[in-house]
Amino acid sequence: MKKKIVLAYSGGLDTTVIIPWLKENYDCDIIAVCVDVGQEADWETIKQRALTTGASACYVADVKKEYVENYVWPALKAGAVYEDKYLLGTSTARPLIAKVLVEYARKEKAVAIAHGATGKGNDQVRFDLGIMAFAPDLEIIAPWRTWDIKSREEEIEYLEKRGIPVPMKKSDSYSRDDNLWHISHEGLELEDPANEPNLERMLKMTVPPEKAPDKAEYVEIEFEQGIPVAVNGKRMDGVSLIKTLNKIGGAHGVGIVDLVENRVVGMKSRGVYETPGGAILYYAHQELEHLCLDRQTYAFKQMVSQKMAEVIYGGLWFTPLREALSAFVDSTQRTVSGKVRLKLYKGSISAAGSTSPYSLYNTSIASFTTGELYNHADAKGFIRLYGLPVLVRALMEQGFVKGTQHIDGTEAKSSGVAG
Amino acid sequence: MKKKIVLAYSGGLDTTVIIPWLKENYDCDIIAVCVDVGQEADWETIKQRALTTGASACYVADVKKEYVENYVWPALKAGAVYEDKYLLGTSTARPLIAKVLVEYARKEKAVAIAHGATGKGNDQVRFDLGIMAFAPDLEIIAPWRTWDIKSREEEIEYLEKRGIPVPMKKSDSYSRDDNLWHISHEGLELEDPANEPNLERMLKMTVPPEKAPDKAEYVEIEFEQGIPVAVNGKRMDGVSLIKTLNKIGGAHGVGIVDLVENRVVGMKSRGVYETPGGAILYYAHQELEHLCLDRQTYAFKQMVSQKMAEVIYGGLWFTPLREALSAFVDSTQRTVSGKVRLKLYKGSISAAGSTSPYSLYNTSIASFTTGELYNHADAKGFIRLYGLPVLVRALMEQGFVKGTQHIDGTEAKSSGVAG
Amino acid sequence: MKKKIVLAYSGGLDTTVIIPWLKENYDCDIIAVCVDVGQEADWETIKQRALTTGASACYVADVKKEYVENYVWPALKAGAVYEDKYLLGTSTARPLIAKVLVEYARKEKAVAIAHGATGKGNDQVRFDLGIMAFAPDLEIIAPWRTWDIKSREEEIEYLEKRGIPVPMKKSDSYSRDDNLWHISHEGLELEDPANEPNLERMLKMTVPPEKAPDKAEYVEIEFEQGIPVAVNGKRMDGVSLIKTLNKIGGAHGVGIVDLVENRVVGMKSRGVYETPGGAILYYAHQELEHLCLDRQTYAFKQMVSQKMAEVIYGGLWFTPLREALSAFVDSTQRTVSGKVRLKLYKGSISAAGSTSPYSLYNTSIASFTTGELYNHADAKGFIRLYGLPVLVRALMEQGFVKGTQHIDGTEAKSSGVAG
Amino acid sequence: MKKKIVLAYSGGLDTTVIIPWLKENYDCDIIAVCVDVGQEADWETIKQRALTTGASACYVADVKKEYVENYVWPALKAGAVYEDKYLLGTSTARPLIAKVLVEYARKEKAVAIAHGATGKGNDQVRFDLGIMAFAPDLEIIAPWRTWDIKSREEEIEYLEKRGIPVPMKKSDSYSRDDNLWHISHEGLELEDPANEPNLERMLKMTVPPEKAPDKAEYVEIEFEQGIPVAVNGKRMDGVSLIKTLNKIGGAHGVGIVDLVENRVVGMKSRGVYETPGGAILYYAHQELEHLCLDRQTYAFKQMVSQKMAEVIYGGLWFTPLREALSAFVDSTQRTVSGKVRLKLYKGSISAAGSTSPYSLYNTSIASFTTGELYNHADAKGFIRLYGLPVLVRALMEQGFVKGTQHIDGTEAKSSGVAG
Repeated sequence: MKKKIVLAYSGGLDTTVIIPWLKENYDCDIIAVCVDVGQEADWETIKQRALTTGASACYVADVKKEYVENYVWPALKAGAVYEDKYLLGTSTARPLIAKVLVEYARKEKAVAIAHGATGKGNDQVRFDLGIMAFAPDLEIIAPWRTWDIKSREEEIEYLEKRGIPVPMKKSDSYSRDDNLWHISHEGLELEDPANEPNLERMLKMTVPPEKAPDKAEYVEIEFEQGIPVAVNGKRMDGVSLIKTLNKIGGAHGVGIVDLVENRVVGMKSRGVYETPGGAILYYAHQELEHLCLDRQTYAFKQMVSQKMAEVIYGGLWFTPLREALSAFVDSTQRTVSGKVRLKLYKGSISAAGSTSPYSLYNTSIASFTTGELYNHADAKGFIRLYGLPVLVRALMEQGFVKGTQHIDGTEAKSSGVAG
Repeated sequence: MKKKIVLAYSGGLDTTVIIPWLKENYDCDIIAVCVDVGQEADWETIKQRALTTGASACYVADVKKEYVENYVWPALKAGAVYEDKYLLGTSTARPLIAKVLVEYARKEKAVAIAHGATGKGNDQVRFDLGIMAFAPDLEIIAPWRTWDIKSREEEIEYLEKRGIPVPMKKSDSYSRDDNLWHISHEGLELEDPANEPNLERMLKMTVPPEKAPDKAEYVEIEFEQGIPVAVNGKRMDGVSLIKTLNKIGGAHGVGIVDLVENRVVGMKSRGVYETPGGAILYYAHQELEHLCLDRQTYAFKQMVSQKMAEVIYGGLWFTPLREALSAFVDSTQRTVSGKVRLKLYKGSISAAGSTSPYSLYNTSIASFTTGELYNHADAKGFIRLYGLPVLVRALMEQGFVKGTQHIDGTEAKSSGVAG
Repeated sequence: MKKKIVLAYSGGLDTTVIIPWLKENYDCDIIAVCVDVGQEADWETIKQRALTTGASACYVADVKKEYVENYVWPALKAGAVYEDKYLLGTSTARPLIAKVLVEYARKEKAVAIAHGATGKGNDQVRFDLGIMAFAPDLEIIAPWRTWDIKSREEEIEYLEKRGIPVPMKKSDSYSRDDNLWHISHEGLELEDPANEPNLERMLKMTVPPEKAPDKAEYVEIEFEQGIPVAVNGKRMDGVSLIKTLNKIGGAHGVGIVDLVENRVVGMKSRGVYETPGGAILYYAHQELEHLCLDRQTYAFKQMVSQKMAEVIYGGLWFTPLREALSAFVDSTQRTVSGKVRLKLYKGSISAAGSTSPYSLYNTSIASFTTGELYNHADAKGFIRLYGLPVLVRALMEQGFVKGTQHIDGTEAKSSGVAG
Repeated sequence: MKKKIVLAYSGGLDTTVIIPWLKENYDCDIIAVCVDVGQEADWETIKQRALTTGASACYVADVKKEYVENYVWPALKAGAVYEDKYLLGTSTARPLIAKVLVEYARKEKAVAIAHGATGKGNDQVRFDLGIMAFAPDLEIIAPWRTWDIKSREEEIEYLEKRGIPVPMKKSDSYSRDDNLWHISHEGLELEDPANEPNLERMLKMTVPPEKAPDKAEYVEIEFEQGIPVAVNGKRMDGVSLIKTLNKIGGAHGVGIVDLVENRVVGMKSRGVYETPGGAILYYAHQELEHLCLDRQTYAFKQMVSQKMAEVIYGGLWFTPLREALSAFVDSTQRTVSGKVRLKLYKGSISAAGSTSPYSLYNTSIASFTTGELYNHADAKGFIRLYGLPVLVRALMEQGFVKGTQHIDGTEAKSSGVAG
């Protein structure tokens, strides 16, 4: 019996070429595994293609529910946004795909896992680390890092030489990745940061803001402990909820992001992301946190959010740090329950009122017409002690110089108005 | 000669009432000082009002240039945003006002400084600390923390009883603060976070997005070392630049923020902010940083931004920490020069291309068609060592259990797809 | 029936004076509550004193076990050290004491809780916040913030005037706080930071290093998930374990800290702390973390440690942030199990070998004689990509200037050696 | 004329073997460069050895002064300590060495730089990145990553076969690196973390604590803006100052660190470091910061310290982030001037009093006998507002449950004492 290699199979040109290439270079059987995280795909056709191309078997694993509950929700609850813009659509899916690949590899007693990620991107990192986390003993094969094929044209030629049907002909399109949560676009005009993205040509889930309806639409999201559970009053499971919001948000052109980002492998690259439902959920979730988290928790969670984004982006999902960050986040989410109303209009999202049984906004304190809970006179004592270090420093400085000067001179310049 | 008290005078009802109140309670002369940071105001009328109401003198100090260059630009360069939304319009102006008050107090040999900030807000903190930083010996008088007056009605009654003209009659309006950079709104429907803001009634600098033109407008900002120096190719000073962008941005309804925020004095409050020019500048500045800052600098600067925002919001402008954070920021800005094009449309801002002589985006590395600067084969070694901790942990765990389980069981659950 | 006030009673002069003072000023019954967190105390005598002095009842609550397990261990696991030196002995005990006071207040249906903390210290903050967290409706009475008594002498006079026995006569001693975990010392020569502490006169739990044995002693601590469970191979409960280590550590003069620290109320103060057992445990725990935590987890946990220390020091134990920080920490501690051997000698602690079943130190990787797990050739690819941002920046700079100069000139200066 | 390669030459076995190896493999002339950062070395002998072995030229660059002022002092001012223990002795020297190598390469018009760092360590990262920062065009040759030689024995054999004198015979010693600031030790018993280090055999600069004098020694360090300028009242340049303190500290056995650390290349390794002078300087510097930095500055600087340590350890000296961190640090050091007295005794350092003209310790505030600068009554207002979020949360919770329970139940457990 030949050795088996599990291949992460998408049905596209890249992974289709890998099937004969692996067989020629490793003398092995190929187990193609398609992991369904919500991408657009005709799985029956893809399955057939894998077998036609030479795979011994092809499995399709529908993990959409697991993807949403165990990967997307943790990122959402954390408020994880990479470099202030990217909602981590690809980054959250890759580790789950890796985990599924290992499961098939174990079941099939395979000796290696192959994937079609290139040597320049982040996905190779996420795949490799996901595999290493569960199967440090398995070999990882990433043909793009080693073979001589350099372009789509050469891939097509490779297949044609072997009489294998080519899944798609020459493409002059963007390089894309899609799943339930988002679509990413790279290449073409995006390769020069000076160019504006050609949204008309590019977008798949979303209309350009100019094409959105002239009338705003309101949407209400309900959360329980940081997790969205209902849209416009209708409870639904996570997969349906994201699909629903993608449709609503996509129609109003929200959630389009254009970003020059720093990849894990050290270079800057540029992509456009569509995350219509995700953008709505992140916005709504943050609104609720403004209502339900106290100042210090909010502030430290900002640092946790940032680190969570770096960790997820960097392929470090299955690490003690990601788990610990999630534990922090989950603790803060106990009271992040309530309803948020948002207004969608021509590409923008704005807040339109939030409520929560755990709201820390206290009218009898905050209202200008003071309630008994807040005593204006307390403020004096507060400021005296809160500002004591400022006072002490100023006193120390007065020991050095007279007038309104600081020691170092930097703040000492008069504004010149009282001259 | 009577003792002198310097009063931060705005010409509004609150500070007008304070003039007779101080004279009655302190037996002093009042030096009214108006600090012009770009707010809407008819200074001649206001000056007259101060004198009519009983002030011995009234000065108007125009510090708009200083405000922009020494307070707004440092916040912008830092990317300081309080609780992810507020661009610190009031927070940046208060310390400068305090500094100017001290300068007049010194010149006039005053013994105290009075201001009209309430006992519930942040501004009292910013005023008091600003004063303490330069004049730890001066008394600070904040009548709202101590007097018996409880409402606008009582203020009007107070003036009428003394035959003093009332600057404005009963108001049912929002509580506002404005300057060159922004306008804030509080009160009325905003006091219940469940309510959507009534933008039609509220907005002053900006149109509601629905009223914005149907055609997008492009604007190009040029920066030198993090500071904006030109709009649409035309160089201008900071004050003019902000005014120009306020007009452009205001017409397109951008820069409206609705926020339930955590005040320094411990309560949550809710405000709406208009910062049309500021929103454009922050967006453009960040775009340029995506191009010009490397990954690690960008990441640590995110923490510095957050802390800078907390420090500015909290009235700690004149502190060693703010100075040190600014030193960090300035160091990062040496290469943040270039041009950013933005598209404004119906309340939203989007990126439309950036260029910089210091850009770290390197086409011969980033382009899918690899140049000689990036070797795909390097990725394997990189991932092996970058992921080595993941591998070592997995090996350690394999010493404990067989299969794909983690030690703690949390990640061990099969996704069930390979069963 | 008179209203009841619960008083945090220590048996010392301060809280003894408070009994008659409260009765005179509030017309109430006093319920004295002594909370035993391991301090040196003869509870029977103290109980008697409370009743003699006028309390209606006096309870002693032994919460040593709860103190160790729910307050000390979380701080230890977090590695929380305030301002790099203070092991939080008093800070961890205060919130528990506050919680116990509330429990008695509820049971007794009291309307207020009184404590003897001064208006200058941190403890009032910790007491007040602890009480507020569980009983926002109860009044808090802190006589030191309001009464006219200014000194120990006046306290004694106050008692003598009323014919109440004085618990101790005039003291010229340090101001101290002690519990199972530590003793703090303030006052006398410590009030001038220029002075060296007079350890001979001051120390209670520890000998000065010069008085320690000339022979080092080894001690082995075993941890399970970050919690110490055995000393020198003997398993014991937390209270016994700390007592044991205090004895061992105290004999060798370890755990003495002298610190000028920043109080919550804005001033600097100076204290000396004895934490012999605590110092051993912190040291041992960190050694184990060096073995069992990966780089990224260790690094982020350093920030969590620091924040945890600030939060605990600042009296914010019963807050969502402290709970979330603990959740982070607990997640990291799953594999922090093993044995650590330390050497104690003349005031110093040093590492003498550690072992853990979860150790991430992998000999077949780390050993100079490479095993198959590490391929030297991987390093080249790793460094190329890890350092890619450095390379890209250098290339960008070379576009500007020739030679070895950086853009900004700062790093451009030749070291002059190759001239 | 042959191409030239600059070789970082130490005179040891590794770099001596590299000379003939390079000549055989690259057909080039070798320019040996010795960079004197204070290591023990007989430069004349070493120079001779280089030439004898086949180098065309050998230069010795004395950069001790630059090392101290531009590399050690910035790390000291930052308080940078890697993983809470390592004072970065090797890490600070490597980037300077790299910079010097580039200077010689430019002067000699060399096409490559070679070094003898192994493929498992951190130093290759520091060398390579330092070179890349100034000379992205130069090739870097690290024979240990590519050649077939596997051990010292094979190195010796390599030389003997070619009739080249072997600088030292078989060694069974530790692997060491030394410079003015420290010595590091790896290998032998240290390769098993369970072993106690054999200090007697290992130490070079320091005596084991047991061998230190029975009498403590006091040492006083004076700082100006964070930089040490005098020892025991005697001003001296940086190089002399470190030498002086190494001697004093070494005699008392201070500054010995034993650490299992996380290397940049992903593995854990274990080393023992001697940094007697450095340990004294770090301790003294921190004492002064306790006196001169306010709370918020101190706290944020802790995060900057940690990041600075990671950056330096990771070879990222010549990066915008390191420069920006240094800018932050330098800003904080403006007032870190004064004198610190320390006590050295049997391996331990303790504080013995500090003074500074910029001290923020204010006796008239801190002293128990209150001066007029601190009003105890202010504390009530302070705590009410500082604790307001705790109160608001408690009120919100009381809306849910009665009694002393928290919403989530976790803190709700009674301590059981009041039952």
